[in-house]
Amino acid sequence: MLKLYYAADTCSLASHIALEDAGADYALARVSFAQNEQRSPEYLAINPKGRVPAMLTDRGILTETPAMLVFIAQSFPQAGLAPLDDPFAFAELQAFNSFLCSTLHVAHAHRMRGHRWADDQAAIAAMKRKVPDSVGASYDLIERHMFRGPWVIGEAYTICDPYLFTIAQWMEGDGIDPERFPRVADHRRRMAERPAVRKAIAQEQR
Amino acid sequence: MLKLYYAADTCSLASHIALEDAGADYALARVSFAQNEQRSPEYLAINPKGRVPAMLTDRGILTETPAMLVFIAQSFPQAGLAPLDDPFAFAELQAFNSFLCSTLHVAHAHRMRGHRWADDQAAIAAMKRKVPDSVGASYDLIERHMFRGPWVIGEAYTICDPYLFTIAQWMEGDGIDPERFPRVADHRRRMAERPAVRKAIAQEQR
Repeated sequence: MLKLYYAADTCSLASHIALEDAGADYALARVSFAQNEQRSPEYLAINPKGRVPAMLTDRGILTETPAMLVFIAQSFPQAGLAPLDDPFAFAELQAFNSFLCSTLHVAHAHRMRGHRWADDQAAIAAMKRKVPDSVGASYDLIERHMFRGPWVIGEAYTICDPYLFTIAQWMEGDGIDPERFPRVADHRRRMAERPAVRKAIAQEQR
Repeated sequence: MLKLYYAADTCSLASHIALEDAGADYALARVSFAQNEQRSPEYLAINPKGRVPAMLTDRGILTETPAMLVFIAQSFPQAGLAPLDDPFAFAELQAFNSFLCSTLHVAHAHRMRGHRWADDQAAIAAMKRKVPDSVGASYDLIERHMFRGPWVIGEAYTICDPYLFTIAQWMEGDGIDPERFPRVADHRRRMAERPAVRKAIAQEQR
């Protein structure tokens, strides 16, 4: 059985929703950031990066959201969560998720995790001030060029959708008015109504 | 025929090497960063993100190195550049490349592209000072936990290898002594001797 190591309000929600979408049999293991469990020897033995998500499988541990999402889609092909037999369409899907992890999520991380990239407090404060700009620029690209509708890659719901939804949960905290990006905001509203999403969020918040 | 939009000394080299490894028929299109061509209307029509790499295929444009590398591996399966029929092994490969794009490359980018995440010069200078630490921490994870040898994922050469090699070209510029990370340094030396790598670099530097 799969076991997802997660923390509430982090990108692990994307894999959690995808496991629900896939109809997977899985267990949850909460990692408490408040207690700094992600840096505990026990958790570092699971994921030496000290981050969530991680997923225990019968072959070992997997990490990194884009990789885990594809693993879920490939392990449960009947759920139809990715165009697995079309290398070009699959690459478009992967490009979207790669942009989320390496550009949008990174821009967001400069609000709370500036210490990763600078030591002095003034620099960390300067990074925080730019988050509405840098995160906003990422959503602008998504809104105008990348999002196809009704789902991220078009007619089919895929593993891009829970990932975008998860990160879009952070818009207000990042100083972004969702209504500046109506297609992303509408997607977020529709995602929030899906039973798999409601269930995953309820499990994480309790 | 595939057409790779590249700039010298950027991560586009990874896809360039992979195209050589695959025996692909491809054309090259240089994007001059010195002339800011990546922000020209012509290039933004190809890639609205204003970044390299991008790749023109007979179905349209692809972007994002991890996605393009998998596309190359899937389009030329006879080259054996990824474990395409093993979802777990494929996810491990993808997790490695995702770490490169979202953690190691991002840490590196704070040396020359700090303006993406802060506006004031003191903050940008503070980011630059931390690059040896943040990039070094990424190589430490690779050296001690992720790199298996002789190639990134073990016995098989895959699309992880040109990607690690490409980023490892920047070690000295990032203030990293390669000999601190002997397995990464040895990989870099062995990669540099491969004919595909020598050919790709020679094409980009001329």
